[in-house]
Amino acid sequence: MTIRMTTLLQRTRLLLRAHICHRTAIATSVQGHLPMKTILKKCYLSTNHKRPASSSPMGPCSVSLRSHTCGELRPEHAGEKVALYGWVQYLRQDLFVILRDYSGLTQVLISQDDGSLNEKLGELTVESVVKVTGTVRRRPEGQENTNMPTGDIEVLAENLEVLNTCRKLPFEIKDFVKKSEALRMQYRYLDLRSTRMQQNLRLRSQLSMRMREYLCHQHGFVDVETPTLFKRTPGGAKEFLVPSREPGRFYSLPQSPQQFKQLLMVAGVDRYFQFARCYRDEGSKPDRQPEFTQVDIEMSFVEQAGVMALVEGLLRYSWPPELGGLSQPFPCITYSEAMRDYGSDKPDTRFHMKLVDISEVFVNTKIEFLKSALGQSEGSIQAICVPDGGRLFKSKDLEALKETARSVFGQELSVLAVRPEGTLKSPLSKHLSPSDTEGLLGETGARPGDLLLVSACSLHTVRPLLGKLRLQCAELMEARGVTLRDPTAFHFLWIVDFPLFLPKEGEPGSLESAHHPFTAPVAQDAHLVYTEPLQVRGQHYDLVLNGCEVGGGSIRIHKAAEQLHVLKNILKEDVSVLSHLLEALDSGAPPHGGIALGLDRLISLMVRAPSIRDVIAFPKSFRGHDLMSQAPDYVSEEDLKPYHISVTWPPAKTEEK
Amino acid sequence: MTIRMTTLLQRTRLLLRAHICHRTAIATSVQGHLPMKTILKKCYLSTNHKRPASSSPMGPCSVSLRSHTCGELRPEHAGEKVALYGWVQYLRQDLFVILRDYSGLTQVLISQDDGSLNEKLGELTVESVVKVTGTVRRRPEGQENTNMPTGDIEVLAENLEVLNTCRKLPFEIKDFVKKSEALRMQYRYLDLRSTRMQQNLRLRSQLSMRMREYLCHQHGFVDVETPTLFKRTPGGAKEFLVPSREPGRFYSLPQSPQQFKQLLMVAGVDRYFQFARCYRDEGSKPDRQPEFTQVDIEMSFVEQAGVMALVEGLLRYSWPPELGGLSQPFPCITYSEAMRDYGSDKPDTRFHMKLVDISEVFVNTKIEFLKSALGQSEGSIQAICVPDGGRLFKSKDLEALKETARSVFGQELSVLAVRPEGTLKSPLSKHLSPSDTEGLLGETGARPGDLLLVSACSLHTVRPLLGKLRLQCAELMEARGVTLRDPTAFHFLWIVDFPLFLPKEGEPGSLESAHHPFTAPVAQDAHLVYTEPLQVRGQHYDLVLNGCEVGGGSIRIHKAAEQLHVLKNILKEDVSVLSHLLEALDSGAPPHGGIALGLDRLISLMVRAPSIRDVIAFPKSFRGHDLMSQAPDYVSEEDLKPYHISVTWPPAKTEEK
Repeated sequence: MTIRMTTLLQRTRLLLRAHICHRTAIATSVQGHLPMKTILKKCYLSTNHKRPASSSPMGPCSVSLRSHTCGELRPEHAGEKVALYGWVQYLRQDLFVILRDYSGLTQVLISQDDGSLNEKLGELTVESVVKVTGTVRRRPEGQENTNMPTGDIEVLAENLEVLNTCRKLPFEIKDFVKKSEALRMQYRYLDLRSTRMQQNLRLRSQLSMRMREYLCHQHGFVDVETPTLFKRTPGGAKEFLVPSREPGRFYSLPQSPQQFKQLLMVAGVDRYFQFARCYRDEGSKPDRQPEFTQVDIEMSFVEQAGVMALVEGLLRYSWPPELGGLSQPFPCITYSEAMRDYGSDKPDTRFHMKLVDISEVFVNTKIEFLKSALGQSEGSIQAICVPDGGRLFKSKDLEALKETARSVFGQELSVLAVRPEGTLKSPLSKHLSPSDTEGLLGETGARPGDLLLVSACSLHTVRPLLGKLRLQCAELMEARGVTLRDPTAFHFLWIVDFPLFLPKEGEPGSLESAHHPFTAPVAQDAHLVYTEPLQVRGQHYDLVLNGCEVGGGSIRIHKAAEQLHVLKNILKEDVSVLSHLLEALDSGAPPHGGIALGLDRLISLMVRAPSIRDVIAFPKSFRGHDLMSQAPDYVSEEDLKPYHISVTWPPAKTEEK
Repeated sequence: MTIRMTTLLQRTRLLLRAHICHRTAIATSVQGHLPMKTILKKCYLSTNHKRPASSSPMGPCSVSLRSHTCGELRPEHAGEKVALYGWVQYLRQDLFVILRDYSGLTQVLISQDDGSLNEKLGELTVESVVKVTGTVRRRPEGQENTNMPTGDIEVLAENLEVLNTCRKLPFEIKDFVKKSEALRMQYRYLDLRSTRMQQNLRLRSQLSMRMREYLCHQHGFVDVETPTLFKRTPGGAKEFLVPSREPGRFYSLPQSPQQFKQLLMVAGVDRYFQFARCYRDEGSKPDRQPEFTQVDIEMSFVEQAGVMALVEGLLRYSWPPELGGLSQPFPCITYSEAMRDYGSDKPDTRFHMKLVDISEVFVNTKIEFLKSALGQSEGSIQAICVPDGGRLFKSKDLEALKETARSVFGQELSVLAVRPEGTLKSPLSKHLSPSDTEGLLGETGARPGDLLLVSACSLHTVRPLLGKLRLQCAELMEARGVTLRDPTAFHFLWIVDFPLFLPKEGEPGSLESAHHPFTAPVAQDAHLVYTEPLQVRGQHYDLVLNGCEVGGGSIRIHKAAEQLHVLKNILKEDVSVLSHLLEALDSGAPPHGGIALGLDRLISLMVRAPSIRDVIAFPKSFRGHDLMSQAPDYVSEEDLKPYHISVTWPPAKTEEK
């Protein structure tokens, strides 16, 4: 069947072809000195209806009106006719227009002899969108700008067309202009024009693409999209609800595709991944977003070490070369070791200052508060040593540290300074025997000038306390000019052997999952699930980067009976809501496991952004608002009717449409 | 800083290394006749803490417990020791286990001499998950299975381990077993094990990856994720609502990232794409899904022809080679031509049977109903000719066609059969003059044996009517065994020059956008926007494949004044809700345009699936239910409280948790 080509089609095709020809013609023109019009006419004449598809150029100027981007012209382009499109970055000396696009800047020279061009120049406003046609030329000697990649050339304008005039803006689009976060969010489309945000978004796109290549091409993963309109999960208090048109029935926006990824393994998909949009309604938490993206991975017939090796390979493959290489395999410590050495399950291993257990030193102490601490269940005396802390920390710093101990953990903190002669300066020191001092210095390795922070209480408190103070000290030291943490370093770290269950807060005797109820126990501990669940380690692994959790995963329970036992007998959950999953496990579920990486967090650490908002195109404020469009917004009662809901207490302020 | 490697780490690393070694060892073992245990021990001994990262193998068995997939063994593997993991597809003759994974089947032979293996075999159930270790060997001569890619070999089992026993299933996992759609959906994890669904999901993943490569690597596009928790758009009656924790305020799940993609252009992102999850609450429409995926594309400094060329290149690049090549450029017709020739704006161009305007033939007719039709405004008489229809169509077929005309369009249909001698058989024929007959046959090209379907009424009715009957005839003809539409053909077609505005249904004098209010007018018609808006053609383009719309896009309005005029003066919208977009257009918005391709629909056509549900891993039923988990589900009043909503009329049935 043939379809008549329309005049419109002919016209649009011709335009395109003319455009392609234009670039060729421009080049030819320069070399062959044929007038442009003649060449363009020739192009038009030689056009036939069948545009050879392979003739489309590639790269950032393909199928575009421009001949070059604003960042690509170099001295070798001198003499070429070009068509540039971009934003007016600066206007200089009534002579120059500095044109910007995402790729860079180009200086455009308006000849003072051209009255009409000068008139246009006079009316130009910064950030207006213009088209410039002209000829590339080397800048006169001595006028090159070495700070600008295109600084050796300029474009002598033959024509300048204003495509859109920019009104007065709320802030200047200059990287050095500081703007408040609220203003940046309200005018996000302007904020995104900054070099930094352009780079962040582009890096994110490139990293994602590299990750996909690695998973698809190198390891046979299948990208599967799973639903976001799902059923509320047990304990899913942080799930957004979506009313349906059936009275009383709601979808739920899931926090992760956990159930679906496991069901895909039961379905024999073998290797699944997805850049999954996830939702979490946490109200206002700093640097959290109600929707976020995780790189979601699941595999069948794999063990913990296999998933870890895959992730290491994934990061190595996708890591931007400009950030330096990653040493592999990543170090790996157990949860117990992390808590023992760093007082945290996501330790920042870019610096030392580990926790030291000094209980042994005081095993026979007479000092009352130490003695009483050691007497309690799991009582312990621990210290961290701040190198040169005596000099670095002022008394208000020490007060701040003590205040943290007091307000967050309800504990007193003892501070001991090591004097040049090796004695300790502290209200405590008069109670210390020489052997106490010797023991303290020996265990902590403290040297003259150092500061010892000592806390004595139960292990469950003293470790997180000193873990937090360790980080607070690091910040204080850096504020005093000490380069404690190499700002270019990326310290990845695996944490393994987490407990599978934890005592439920506020409900003595009850247990909850440390991560989620689908995590399998470590093989050696499997029998303890039935006898001593608190002793069971889970096959869970967390990936930590520079002290932030960037990923977590586990080998899952793949047998229905085990899963039922955990849900019903240990966690006392209503199993009916997960009956489909239990049935699936009973239908030939393979051994499987996976991981999810927090993409927003990972990228924000890579680009050293202060917030994940800096790597998300349109983030919400910390109150969950879109400051640009004012979402969430009021909805009329009329619009709520189809969903059989109405707004209740407190008296609702509704806006009629 | 060094982190102490734990015993656990050593163990898991060792396991992995052992595994890698295992594969090597197996190969070595066969060649060198060393006992396996000795070799594995050597591997363990030679393992050091630093696993060289580059040693990880690639492909579908990387970081896995298996040595090979079930689809890859060939005669050249004979003699190799292998470890296979998979599902029991068949059990045959108390001797064979046919093992399945996503990649294929392998026959495993259980020696009758091995008592323990035979015992396990006796207890095996179909679809259980097992691990088999054994040796590959050629099948005895004459026992090869040429229908099976692995049919030349079998694996002589040395061990068989049941990893998970499968209970009795609701249906057999055999491609030939027919299941009801409801049952397939309830047990989707079993349904996905079928060869067809595995292929569909994998093809979808591969196609997406190819599209991404084309956009990122060849044309400099940036993958940007945009929010799905947004603000209700004007007229967004089909948008799901998401209650927030602020009383009366709701997010909305958008139908597309339209506003965000335009804002990204204002932000200077230049070329954006996203595989965007979109939401549309349409209640129960057949073959629609409440959430779906579109390939969302937007570019700056581009014209209509540029976007069309990009999409043609995108499809050519990503098109699976096994589906045959795509001829390019795609044909392109105007909306007027589509309506004139096919009575549809998404014509199926795989077959002829175009609409023919036969008004001229009857311009002086005395036949009352024809005369009266021509007398009305835009009255027209039109026909389609069904080749060989006289023989093919039974009277009940003709009744069905007439019923469609009557019930859907309120019109009578005249049917005329062409007799062998060239006269017409019809109740109408006694009124037809010889010149009428001659004119009819001449205009329609009808030949003896053909059938003419004639309708006379206003153009706005007669075209859609015959357009619909044209498709109904095609189905009837195919049901009678005529190969009208090549089942392997892919007919892409562009439709352009749509009207920009349409009269608003039920509101005389009011206008609405034919597509959306952001579409720019065709340049030549731009002045008519202020004077005769109904005459304005929009720079909108639809991509049609085999009669289904698979994409649509436009060049957008980039000037605030024009956009304001359209929203305020023409569409009478409340512009305050779009003030952020208008402000953005005033802040240096570049000319821009884009397109969105419906990924689910496109893939379903590619794999010739009867429904888009066949290319979505976990689709909803046509009532919007997840039949596996029973979403949407009832939520307790308690869980609604944080959102300040309650369920209203009709009396809500609520389930307490």
